[in-house]
Amino acid sequence: MNTLGNIFRITSFGESHGKAVGVVIDGCPPLLEINIDFIQHQLNKRRPGQSELTTARNEEDKLEIISGVFEGVSTGAPIMLLIQNKDSNSDDYHSLKEVYRPSHADYTYQQKYGIRDHRGGGRSSARITAGWVAAGAIAKLILNIQKISVTAYVKQIHKIALEIPYDQIDLSLIESNPVRCPNPETAERMIQEIFKAKNEGDSLGGIISCLIQNCPVGVGEPVFDKLNAKLSHAIMSINAVKGIQFGDGFNSINFKGSELNDALTLDNSGNIKTLSNHSGGIQGGISNGEAIYFETAFKPTATIGKEQKTVDTKGNETILSAKGRHDPCVLPRAVPIVEAMAACVIADLILAQKAYSL
Amino acid sequence: MNTLGNIFRITSFGESHGKAVGVVIDGCPPLLEINIDFIQHQLNKRRPGQSELTTARNEEDKLEIISGVFEGVSTGAPIMLLIQNKDSNSDDYHSLKEVYRPSHADYTYQQKYGIRDHRGGGRSSARITAGWVAAGAIAKLILNIQKISVTAYVKQIHKIALEIPYDQIDLSLIESNPVRCPNPETAERMIQEIFKAKNEGDSLGGIISCLIQNCPVGVGEPVFDKLNAKLSHAIMSINAVKGIQFGDGFNSINFKGSELNDALTLDNSGNIKTLSNHSGGIQGGISNGEAIYFETAFKPTATIGKEQKTVDTKGNETILSAKGRHDPCVLPRAVPIVEAMAACVIADLILAQKAYSL
Amino acid sequence: MNTLGNIFRITSFGESHGKAVGVVIDGCPPLLEINIDFIQHQLNKRRPGQSELTTARNEEDKLEIISGVFEGVSTGAPIMLLIQNKDSNSDDYHSLKEVYRPSHADYTYQQKYGIRDHRGGGRSSARITAGWVAAGAIAKLILNIQKISVTAYVKQIHKIALEIPYDQIDLSLIESNPVRCPNPETAERMIQEIFKAKNEGDSLGGIISCLIQNCPVGVGEPVFDKLNAKLSHAIMSINAVKGIQFGDGFNSINFKGSELNDALTLDNSGNIKTLSNHSGGIQGGISNGEAIYFETAFKPTATIGKEQKTVDTKGNETILSAKGRHDPCVLPRAVPIVEAMAACVIADLILAQKAYSL
Amino acid sequence: MNTLGNIFRITSFGESHGKAVGVVIDGCPPLLEINIDFIQHQLNKRRPGQSELTTARNEEDKLEIISGVFEGVSTGAPIMLLIQNKDSNSDDYHSLKEVYRPSHADYTYQQKYGIRDHRGGGRSSARITAGWVAAGAIAKLILNIQKISVTAYVKQIHKIALEIPYDQIDLSLIESNPVRCPNPETAERMIQEIFKAKNEGDSLGGIISCLIQNCPVGVGEPVFDKLNAKLSHAIMSINAVKGIQFGDGFNSINFKGSELNDALTLDNSGNIKTLSNHSGGIQGGISNGEAIYFETAFKPTATIGKEQKTVDTKGNETILSAKGRHDPCVLPRAVPIVEAMAACVIADLILAQKAYSL
Repeated sequence: MNTLGNIFRITSFGESHGKAVGVVIDGCPPLLEINIDFIQHQLNKRRPGQSELTTARNEEDKLEIISGVFEGVSTGAPIMLLIQNKDSNSDDYHSLKEVYRPSHADYTYQQKYGIRDHRGGGRSSARITAGWVAAGAIAKLILNIQKISVTAYVKQIHKIALEIPYDQIDLSLIESNPVRCPNPETAERMIQEIFKAKNEGDSLGGIISCLIQNCPVGVGEPVFDKLNAKLSHAIMSINAVKGIQFGDGFNSINFKGSELNDALTLDNSGNIKTLSNHSGGIQGGISNGEAIYFETAFKPTATIGKEQKTVDTKGNETILSAKGRHDPCVLPRAVPIVEAMAACVIADLILAQKAYSL
Repeated sequence: MNTLGNIFRITSFGESHGKAVGVVIDGCPPLLEINIDFIQHQLNKRRPGQSELTTARNEEDKLEIISGVFEGVSTGAPIMLLIQNKDSNSDDYHSLKEVYRPSHADYTYQQKYGIRDHRGGGRSSARITAGWVAAGAIAKLILNIQKISVTAYVKQIHKIALEIPYDQIDLSLIESNPVRCPNPETAERMIQEIFKAKNEGDSLGGIISCLIQNCPVGVGEPVFDKLNAKLSHAIMSINAVKGIQFGDGFNSINFKGSELNDALTLDNSGNIKTLSNHSGGIQGGISNGEAIYFETAFKPTATIGKEQKTVDTKGNETILSAKGRHDPCVLPRAVPIVEAMAACVIADLILAQKAYSL
Repeated sequence: MNTLGNIFRITSFGESHGKAVGVVIDGCPPLLEINIDFIQHQLNKRRPGQSELTTARNEEDKLEIISGVFEGVSTGAPIMLLIQNKDSNSDDYHSLKEVYRPSHADYTYQQKYGIRDHRGGGRSSARITAGWVAAGAIAKLILNIQKISVTAYVKQIHKIALEIPYDQIDLSLIESNPVRCPNPETAERMIQEIFKAKNEGDSLGGIISCLIQNCPVGVGEPVFDKLNAKLSHAIMSINAVKGIQFGDGFNSINFKGSELNDALTLDNSGNIKTLSNHSGGIQGGISNGEAIYFETAFKPTATIGKEQKTVDTKGNETILSAKGRHDPCVLPRAVPIVEAMAACVIADLILAQKAYSL
Repeated sequence: MNTLGNIFRITSFGESHGKAVGVVIDGCPPLLEINIDFIQHQLNKRRPGQSELTTARNEEDKLEIISGVFEGVSTGAPIMLLIQNKDSNSDDYHSLKEVYRPSHADYTYQQKYGIRDHRGGGRSSARITAGWVAAGAIAKLILNIQKISVTAYVKQIHKIALEIPYDQIDLSLIESNPVRCPNPETAERMIQEIFKAKNEGDSLGGIISCLIQNCPVGVGEPVFDKLNAKLSHAIMSINAVKGIQFGDGFNSINFKGSELNDALTLDNSGNIKTLSNHSGGIQGGISNGEAIYFETAFKPTATIGKEQKTVDTKGNETILSAKGRHDPCVLPRAVPIVEAMAACVIADLILAQKAYSL
């Protein structure tokens, strides 16, 4: 299934080295102002070649709106967003046609489908997330109307972590550096670590944090479209993600119920608030009005320059020394992808909540 | 949405203190032998009152098959499984009608729906997972045909962890103790820890590990029905789950690509295998033939005996001292739930893989 | 798939001679007053044994609400409605275990599933529509809030037709006779025709008309959830239906565009209306504010007393002389089923229209 | 919803005068040989400007495959098919910006969405069916493997009908004339009738018959994905369709059960067959191995040259005299559309049947 969502539905298509990647958005409400610059801006944050930290593949990633928008606003018809592949250099990948890269999807695609488009990873490439980011930008335009924001940042690269809690972070600093860590000093150390790995022909993973602010109470559809379940589904769809946790997540187990429960209280206006937010803004699969917070673990990029043991398509053991252009660390470019997927989920559930009313 | 799955679809219904809980399974292949004892056995593992570690609510949880089975086998028609509520004692919950329990779904349900069935948590109660476990048992019967097994166990309770890797564990020991940890010594310490928390009127969380063995290569549908994405969706639907990670998960970030990649090799029969399994058996959202492994974090039970600050439904701050029957630690009873959800996902994707063929 | 609808979703289960039939309704908005008498009243109209025109099977069809309703209103949780089978007499069907009834689903179910529950037709029996009627009653309660009505009646039995156009009919007369034709004189002739067929061991088909009044403009989701497409899907799900037509339907082809187009005009209040309603209230798959009108063709009941050539399950030609209890003409009892399916579709689309808004 | 199907899913996008129309096909099995000439050939049958019977809009309708095909075969990834709009002349439609055409979707779209792309009908134009025909061609390639054929033809234009039953027709004659009626003499009369209407500034409707041959027993998923229900849904999605009937359809009611039942017998090879096919090849929503046959009623084209009373967008009554290019009778070009939608449904259900097996 290449479709995600029930009301706000995105259908993804395209391959790394095919003609284009893109997305069809179905269920976007009509009369939404489609700010093309905003969408392109989101795409630019994911664009390869944006800094020395990323792959050398140079794609302009220029957005084309093929349908669903008329005189600057959505019409209620499907919005098709297309991003052409311009700098796909399949020659780099020719040598990969007959070898399975370790910890890549080469072998699993071949076994599942009996065929694989080996050029740049084909359908399994993260290049297809360009379409997702474009869709997420439309979702953000919907959320903007209600002042809901979705903001992700790099919290950890390999062993270099930003130890400041999400609610003490200056989010305006995220875009101040190419690694998208909202702390210039930590960012600088992360950048050095990435360059070091790059020079070693190696790769690094890390953690991206995501914060959804101003989401109203009541978003999320029990029992199988819980807000955290749908966010997990969408985030786990991103290449290289190996884990997700909400609020205190795995660290929750180090506390007892009496320590971890988020006591309810009243704010000055008499509104119900929690005294803490260990749960990450979700109770019973439904937003509780507090900040929604989750963290995502990305494994190190599977493509590395170093030699690796592997097997070729004819069933012989061999040694792989990867060429091709790739990111030594995907996290900086994954920040807009995490935001996009989260925004799509929230938009979907916000619209669902409208439906279920008399 | 109370339906999960595309091909093998389960639709959940029921409340904690209503007449019954249950599930409709649609898409179960015909001619499956429906072993009622096996299903009941799975239900018994989730049953309240099974040991002193669990809630005192005493439900027999007797399975009734209402439809879809004829002369002992499935017919291809929907299988409706019903479990009556017998020992619901709503009086215990009367005092909760007008108060919101911290870190429970009371407040979010009320805000979302404008009404809530407060009796035992209503729809938000984990009691509804009885239906899921019954559905998971049917899924396991499907998987049994291909010798695929789904096995979960308690890996950690609060700070007491089983440090043995999954592939060195004697799974036959899981049911040897009421806490379902496959190491008697660690289990005993966990049990003591739970009793201690119970006596303090407190609660504990922990980690459940899940292992899926003998799953063939090729299961999982990119890009939005990836095996890990669908497993995350299903597992995150379980009450109290705050995180999920596959393979090395969050620990992946402590390694470089050259250390974490699972090199490919050939086994003695010439079949492709990996030398390690840091990825947890999934590449590109598709099973690679290795053991599928994931871990799930459960927060401590939100219901505790200790006094807590909270707010009542009239908007006054108050102190809650919970009565009602509850588990000081849900993990022992959550083991069959994790297995059930995982089994439903695998069965769904195994059937999907059959569909997409010429 | 035993689920119908996107927002207001019904999942059907049960067999003719199993323990029960029923339905799970997911997506019913919360706070809907659940009038049990109203639901039971709809069920009574479908109930077997209600008049001498129908099968002798005597089922009370007593509604049980198992979940989703608390203190008289819907909670937003799935509503499970159960109707027990009390008077299933499987002995009558014993002789049918090894023979395929002509124009029944016996042979196709056997071939598709490799097994069939032969007792009373099993899953292929129209008995399962009892659950649909109950679900349709809930849908009607939703529509009632907006004063939308769904009314079906028998327009034709075999060659006896009510020639009066839908907009000149006194709908209050529908329930004045057991055949549910809103013209006492025509009804009487229909009744006689049915008795005649019954006495001959034969069966009759006919046409049911359905009228949806007061539906607002804008209901229906192009391009694949068009109002007429979804209505057709739902109505074609009813046993014995062989055709459906909207507005002038097949008769449209006898007119030219200039004759058939529904010219637009203004009513006294300045609202846009059409001067005619050849289109049956739908343009481009969306309601236009006029009465929605469609007709449905039911073939004669396949079960007849007369001898028929057929084949048994061992592959021998044989002669069938059906026993069992059956209706000589299903139309009187199909009237509430048509209404129910139409109501479910309209409710689903009314809720969808709420979702797609900023 | 702009997506149709469960396993073989098509997602439609595009507008009449936008940049392009197209479709994303998800769920196409891998390793299907994608014969581009075949797809283009199907598109050519729907292409405007193919004969003097059709609109003067001249579109080459050249197929572009954007994704999902590698080295001539499907890869299992979504297949995106694009058809650019080249000859959209929006000037013709400028005068329609502020007027609602009778029996068109202008008014309903405006009311539903609060906006409409008036150029050539925007999303409500039958131009978008070009994408459907392309998708249907892929579906036919799947069906070809099992030798299943889907063949439609014009059976009636206005009052000129081909009275020969489907099983006595020489299907090879369908493409022998521009009206696609498999009887040259009747075709000639139809053509004259269409020219006459065209000259009068008027339009005609008619009936398209569709025949699905060699479909195996067992296709169709009770109870809500019945073969006839899904076919009806898909066919009713086509512009201008007002009715559908299977087998004897509405004419069934003129017969008694004893006359209409399809008696079962054995053929020379001992296989079960029916002696007649009044049911149109479907019993209980499942194919029975006989020819599947249905008829579809198309109303006359709503766009006519003659003057019509209508209302403008400012709410004034006015007289419309339509310009723009349009077909006086859509049936010849609708033949490939009917085939395409039927092929998509059959392919979807054929794949579903594979899934539901142990």
